[in-house]
Amino acid sequence: MKDCIIIGTGVAGISAALTLKALKIDFEWLGSPQLSYKIRVAENVKNYAGLPSVSGSDMHGAFLRQIEGEGLTITDKRVNGVYPVDGGYSVMCGGDAYEAKTVIVATGIEAVKPVAGEREFLGRGVSYCAVCDGFLYKDKTIAVAVESAEEAHEVQLLAQYARTVYLFCLKKKFEVRGDNIKIMDGRLDEITGDMRVRAVVSGGEEIPVDGVFMLKSAVAADNLVHGLKTEGGHVVVDRSGATNLAGVFAAGDITGRPYQYAKAAGEGNVCAYSVNAYLNSIKVGN
Amino acid sequence: MKDCIIIGTGVAGISAALTLKALKIDFEWLGSPQLSYKIRVAENVKNYAGLPSVSGSDMHGAFLRQIEGEGLTITDKRVNGVYPVDGGYSVMCGGDAYEAKTVIVATGIEAVKPVAGEREFLGRGVSYCAVCDGFLYKDKTIAVAVESAEEAHEVQLLAQYARTVYLFCLKKKFEVRGDNIKIMDGRLDEITGDMRVRAVVSGGEEIPVDGVFMLKSAVAADNLVHGLKTEGGHVVVDRSGATNLAGVFAAGDITGRPYQYAKAAGEGNVCAYSVNAYLNSIKVGN
Repeated sequence: MKDCIIIGTGVAGISAALTLKALKIDFEWLGSPQLSYKIRVAENVKNYAGLPSVSGSDMHGAFLRQIEGEGLTITDKRVNGVYPVDGGYSVMCGGDAYEAKTVIVATGIEAVKPVAGEREFLGRGVSYCAVCDGFLYKDKTIAVAVESAEEAHEVQLLAQYARTVYLFCLKKKFEVRGDNIKIMDGRLDEITGDMRVRAVVSGGEEIPVDGVFMLKSAVAADNLVHGLKTEGGHVVVDRSGATNLAGVFAAGDITGRPYQYAKAAGEGNVCAYSVNAYLNSIKVGN
Repeated sequence: MKDCIIIGTGVAGISAALTLKALKIDFEWLGSPQLSYKIRVAENVKNYAGLPSVSGSDMHGAFLRQIEGEGLTITDKRVNGVYPVDGGYSVMCGGDAYEAKTVIVATGIEAVKPVAGEREFLGRGVSYCAVCDGFLYKDKTIAVAVESAEEAHEVQLLAQYARTVYLFCLKKKFEVRGDNIKIMDGRLDEITGDMRVRAVVSGGEEIPVDGVFMLKSAVAADNLVHGLKTEGGHVVVDRSGATNLAGVFAAGDITGRPYQYAKAAGEGNVCAYSVNAYLNSIKVGN
């Protein structure tokens, strides 16, 4: 069992990772090694102290160099659930589970609103994880909603299992090639069903499906971590980044506005120190 | 009356200034244009996201370039008190007063502990401000305690007024030239007197003085801002940086540990947004 798992590779996660390393804490870092998509596409950031009027792509480059320079490794995983286990938490990523005494949740905010029915059918035909649940839909018909071209490889993975994939682009439209992938023009308006998902609704038309994959860069925190207290979609934290769950800390956009790089970096830093204090406190307790 | 005054030019103040500018808020920025002394002397910072393994002096250079690039101006003033006035606050700096609807206190923490008697005799012979109070000690005998060579020019200013200056270096010893400046070997142990300061005590010896100047890079916040709620030497703030005083916000080391650049930058950023929200709220109120 590690001392800490950081979930997320935005600025909050980066800052937490750099500081955990400085504090010599043994941790696993889960997320995209390409870092947050939002950083790369930022046009120009003028108010991040130390990086004068920097483009998103230059900032992204600086972060990557720093991560490499510090010898930090990102494990390329999409997390689909965090559950309490004896002495800590288990972070589920597809078929793999990572365990640690503490967790720093730095997954950002949902850039797109949940679709009607998404939460209702979560675990009953709605999945956030192609790698985890794709095999369940062998030769079935599925709808896949994607936020950006980042998720293209997951769509292709799903297309290898499913007979038919209806692809909805939640934001800008893009192409994913595949004989059985149908790129939809309309919006994904609703997910319907009874005990399980039965169909999706788009532009008034009902399309029968066996399952729906919502491939988004960030998932609502309370869906991700069972029992996590949220308010208006944000994780409730105190000034140390502590949540209502002992050993679970949160940093960055997920804790609320302003959605700013400096705030995210600050909170990631503070969470790392709070993890350190927490680990010391449970050591004393034993 | 300005919309905001930032006090302090450490990382918290810099981040606040950059963000107030981005938010197009009219503000005055008071502090040392050489920025925080602590930044420059930092050996190596490894966990400030975006600046890989940077020396204090490189970081200092990056901040200066960014401040210049954004066209920000620092008014070179040492603040000696913040007082409520109609519609906001008056920030006193020597003979000058600056007024604003809001204040961001980002003055850092006291690097040295207060000397016995310092708080007791504040305003009764103890002063934090050479420029403000120096003229009161024409041809008198004073003790001056300094934290670093940063304050050398203020010591010289005082030596132009006073007959004799007993100079105590609170940290590393350094020289300030002047026929009437006596550099003391011993520590400044205590400030004593009756209604006013009468003497300082060093190594058991009592040295009669008429006044004592404590020239430190940061002054305890509750001494600086009348009525500000503190706890254990730190300003009590909520997650928005708000203090117990309406319109007064605090950011950086002054709000508590960890004393980290990333935390300071994050809090400065958040305070700027909180100032914006506060200004909007009082506009609506009018």
